[in-house]
Amino acid sequence: MSLVVQKYGGSSIADAEKLKNIARRIIRRKEEGDEVVVVVSAMGDTTERLLRFASQVSKCPNQRELDFLLSTGEIISSTLLAIALHDQGHNAVSLSGAQAGIRTDASYSRAYIRAINPQRILKELKKGNIVIVAGFQGMTGDMDITTLGRGGSDTTAVALAAKLGTAICEIYTDVSGVYTADPCIVPEARKLKEIDYEEMLELASYGAKVIHPRAVELGKVYNMPILVASSFTEETGTLIHEGISMEIQNKVRGIAHDLNVAKVTVVGVPDRPGISTSLFEPLAEAGISVDTIVQNASVEGITDLTFTINRSELGRVMDIIKPISLSIGAKDCIGDATLAKVSIVGIGMQNTPGYAARMFRTFYDAGINIEMITTSEIRITCIIKEEKVPDALRVLHSTFDLYED
Amino acid sequence: MSLVVQKYGGSSIADAEKLKNIARRIIRRKEEGDEVVVVVSAMGDTTERLLRFASQVSKCPNQRELDFLLSTGEIISSTLLAIALHDQGHNAVSLSGAQAGIRTDASYSRAYIRAINPQRILKELKKGNIVIVAGFQGMTGDMDITTLGRGGSDTTAVALAAKLGTAICEIYTDVSGVYTADPCIVPEARKLKEIDYEEMLELASYGAKVIHPRAVELGKVYNMPILVASSFTEETGTLIHEGISMEIQNKVRGIAHDLNVAKVTVVGVPDRPGISTSLFEPLAEAGISVDTIVQNASVEGITDLTFTINRSELGRVMDIIKPISLSIGAKDCIGDATLAKVSIVGIGMQNTPGYAARMFRTFYDAGINIEMITTSEIRITCIIKEEKVPDALRVLHSTFDLYED
Repeated sequence: MSLVVQKYGGSSIADAEKLKNIARRIIRRKEEGDEVVVVVSAMGDTTERLLRFASQVSKCPNQRELDFLLSTGEIISSTLLAIALHDQGHNAVSLSGAQAGIRTDASYSRAYIRAINPQRILKELKKGNIVIVAGFQGMTGDMDITTLGRGGSDTTAVALAAKLGTAICEIYTDVSGVYTADPCIVPEARKLKEIDYEEMLELASYGAKVIHPRAVELGKVYNMPILVASSFTEETGTLIHEGISMEIQNKVRGIAHDLNVAKVTVVGVPDRPGISTSLFEPLAEAGISVDTIVQNASVEGITDLTFTINRSELGRVMDIIKPISLSIGAKDCIGDATLAKVSIVGIGMQNTPGYAARMFRTFYDAGINIEMITTSEIRITCIIKEEKVPDALRVLHSTFDLYED
Repeated sequence: MSLVVQKYGGSSIADAEKLKNIARRIIRRKEEGDEVVVVVSAMGDTTERLLRFASQVSKCPNQRELDFLLSTGEIISSTLLAIALHDQGHNAVSLSGAQAGIRTDASYSRAYIRAINPQRILKELKKGNIVIVAGFQGMTGDMDITTLGRGGSDTTAVALAAKLGTAICEIYTDVSGVYTADPCIVPEARKLKEIDYEEMLELASYGAKVIHPRAVELGKVYNMPILVASSFTEETGTLIHEGISMEIQNKVRGIAHDLNVAKVTVVGVPDRPGISTSLFEPLAEAGISVDTIVQNASVEGITDLTFTINRSELGRVMDIIKPISLSIGAKDCIGDATLAKVSIVGIGMQNTPGYAARMFRTFYDAGINIEMITTSEIRITCIIKEEKVPDALRVLHSTFDLYED
């Protein structure tokens, strides 16, 4: 008998029928002799519905209250799943993050897990219960409810698995694993049997939505293997773990893309010290992450400054940057919301030259213009026109032989 | 500066606009210099929606899980009200029943409050916060969430007021007070300025829906005056307290009616010992409350046995009683869901004869047949045909001079 942590996402339990199906899957696992701890997200669009409520009451809802409000979404799904398990004749108990002993700091909406006290979970397992834990949430030392932010339920699952010392953490979702590229765009994309933490981290950070990078990072820190698989089928998923064989490593492993990109160009800026500070400090104060920053070579003391941000924040950024640009003597400030990031990722890239050159040549041959470039040791990202993304994925998939294992 | 506990019902906060209005009312009170603790029910039909979810997953949902599920309704309304207060520039904090220190026994769906530890509430008040407490819920010693059952939020409010030692507990609802009879049926019905706990208890138990009898009982035990008033207008409400003057007491104070009545008659039962036991024990085991029981005089060892129950339980009761009736040799078993209770209530009745006679005479003159009668020291209840209720209320209102104070 071994202990397993499973996580089911919101689309896997979006209605009563799906909940009952998931209950049956969990029971099969239990009947095979395992002890099961299940982490769930909120059902379907519950979180969006609660956010809509809040925005009807306030344009800028108080963060402590918003976290407490949102935490009810996962309690609703946890209790309903426990009810479904009881209905099928199995003992189950649902626990809020607080009850499950998940202690966090007080950074509302993006709290970090400080510690897990697994006493209650262990007590319930000992009684023979299937334990359902509401994902995405925890409790501060003052007994206030926090949420962990995006990817929170994945993070809860991996953290619990690490604390409980399970052999694996299973993340069930609406896709059946990690693909070499988005199979909706590249039909020949291949599902990976396994992938390294580092590679998954880059893919997830640069647009692959299958698992949140934060959970992958936690898995890496605790060396907790994470299986990503479908909650609807019995297909083999993708195992995220350490120590992929050298032969496999020496390749591009996957292609990620991200449409949530916008570019801002401040045109004709006088090139003098302090300009960057006066532009980027106000953005940092507004909590806006700036991604890539490029400054052209200065011609006669005048330069252009370009940076990228999340597309959803373009409006706010322009409101902040426009007046500043004019006050520092820039000619203009232009926003562009038609861009996307395309990234190739592979651990093998860190020791082998030539990947960047092959990527640029591939784009050139396909008539795809590269607007900006960023890299890490195991990743090369090009910012291109959004409309070119399908072409870009297909040509890269072919160039780097991703059809083959 | 004094401390006040206010409670707002679900219809008072059914949508964003109503929530904002209630926030403004609370702020006015705060700005008058009072410290405010607010208890809220779930918004509008939230509880029904959660129950519907649960019933889609299981015909007989696990009680612990159901309580935990339902408790989210009041957390949603509490947090949204706190968000509305913040939005209007006031500090507020919402607390679950658990956070507010409400400890209960573990009788899920009808938990009793064992103790209140008001430490957190007092701490938040000291910080200048308006404190919003999710009604209807508490926590067991094992940190499991319970609900208090029907009228739970009223009970939370009165219990908190008693523990915090406020001068008054204010219950705001969708009616503007306690009336001498239902003003929808008797347009001349008069709103009472005040009423005794005992009288209110009888009125509430026999159909007046303005406040739950359990909360009135708690008010009586702790001698906590309860104001019932409208959450939409500034009209004076009704004060439930002790020590109404003798002159006022010596009258019928109000008329209650209740349509949730059904009658079951077991016809032609052999009149021998043990018959009642064999009928009523199974009902008690099924958790069904039997109200009035009448047994006719036995003729040649054969009798009829009639009892009343909540109309909503008639189906279940017939399923249980029919087979038993036949097995004990009864001729038949008949359910009747067309009845209602009409009650007159007044503390003065306990020392003064003649009220019952005047009630029966009034019904006789109006052509209203009385099916069954029950009484307490300060109440006389007649069970009549449902269709006669409007007539009955009007003629009683006139007979007992309820138009006048």
